[in-house]
Amino acid sequence: MIYPSISIVGDGNVAKVMGHHISKSDLKLVSICSRNSNKSNKLASLWNCKQEKIESISGDLVLVCVSDDNVIEVIEKIKKDRSIAYCSGSINLDDIDHKNCGVLYPLQTFSGSEQDLMKKFPLLIESKNENTKDLLFDIGKKLSEKVIYINSEERKHIHLSAIFINNFSNHMVHLGQDYGKKNNLPPDVFNDLIRETFNNLLSQSAFKAQTGPARRRDKKTIALHHDLLPDDLKKIYLTITSSIDKTYN
Amino acid sequence: MIYPSISIVGDGNVAKVMGHHISKSDLKLVSICSRNSNKSNKLASLWNCKQEKIESISGDLVLVCVSDDNVIEVIEKIKKDRSIAYCSGSINLDDIDHKNCGVLYPLQTFSGSEQDLMKKFPLLIESKNENTKDLLFDIGKKLSEKVIYINSEERKHIHLSAIFINNFSNHMVHLGQDYGKKNNLPPDVFNDLIRETFNNLLSQSAFKAQTGPARRRDKKTIALHHDLLPDDLKKIYLTITSSIDKTYN
Repeated sequence: MIYPSISIVGDGNVAKVMGHHISKSDLKLVSICSRNSNKSNKLASLWNCKQEKIESISGDLVLVCVSDDNVIEVIEKIKKDRSIAYCSGSINLDDIDHKNCGVLYPLQTFSGSEQDLMKKFPLLIESKNENTKDLLFDIGKKLSEKVIYINSEERKHIHLSAIFINNFSNHMVHLGQDYGKKNNLPPDVFNDLIRETFNNLLSQSAFKAQTGPARRRDKKTIALHHDLLPDDLKKIYLTITSSIDKTYN
Repeated sequence: MIYPSISIVGDGNVAKVMGHHISKSDLKLVSICSRNSNKSNKLASLWNCKQEKIESISGDLVLVCVSDDNVIEVIEKIKKDRSIAYCSGSINLDDIDHKNCGVLYPLQTFSGSEQDLMKKFPLLIESKNENTKDLLFDIGKKLSEKVIYINSEERKHIHLSAIFINNFSNHMVHLGQDYGKKNNLPPDVFNDLIRETFNNLLSQSAFKAQTGPARRRDKKTIALHHDLLPDDLKKIYLTITSSIDKTYN
């Protein structure tokens, strides 16, 4: 089959990973468009494609990889005869006024170090019409082994679940590492614990894997920790401890 | 060298893992003591040792694997001529009135599925005297490749860091999985995200690995999520989102 030419809009982490994978595949990446010409210049030479302005973007399919807050206004600037797909978890497809629009949402965390893992991640697809749907499935299969059709309502919930599962758990690790750093602990001492925390989660539910003073209701330990922590961490500690307590006790 | 005979007090996850590893090593596990005779009966036959009462416990070294809240009262019941080590992260060694007491604290999460991984985890040791210290190092090296001397002050901070790194991150994953379940999402859809979240943390700091709407200050997405969530999750979402925002913006 003949694949459409693709243009990418955006220069953030999602744009970089999508562009990287498309340019390494046998799909045809023709252009990049971003507000920051330094960044798009760099990406254009990396992917061996041209830079374009949003109003005259030339790819048959335009992949909109900008932050959720900017998706709608960016799509409004694109010519109506293009096919479009955006990569956002939270934007409802009904809110987009463009008949050939769909979604290509990679359920992944893009923090810059995992460019070669995309094939293993679910790619969630939605579309306003059958043609664009077929097109997105064909392209999706070039990028991921797990291409699934998910509607806007489900995608919104998946995105919100993923924020707890990835963003918030990551921030908890940061708070622990930061507290350790401020108390002069060796940073490497936690590596095995991090590895095991997540290994556990691949073999059992987080509900079952939970341990610690909040689950055991070790009141003395919780009181000791409350005294040790600075005010900002105290509030977080108590909020989460109370949530764990409510879950188990 | 001649290793001392060992008795274990407790029947929880830590007791089970310590007992399992000691009974599989060439150390001599002679007895178990716990308040629940059904449980200690089962463990005694699993480890091929006898059951004893706390007041007449016979091991040269008594390993106290009870919850933090009970460590001190348990140690008070043990004969003064025994050597003792407790496995708690938060109890200060100065608070223990026993001259041959030390600490053997495994920095690990014991949720039941990882019994064979102990050798890879740090085992943190502290002691009131040199003899017990040598003893604990000798025994520790039979159980773990990483035996480190850490004082009570440092151990207390390590324990508190570990609560954020393991307990709290795990609970975030639970909240995400639970929200997904209540919204009928396929549970497996998040497995790759969980794996990658923690793979990232082994190659970079959590500070660098952070992604998501809170870090990007995607205000529209945050407002949408706020509307979607039930009240208990709303509070947690806003607390952590504000902490991430404070960290980066």
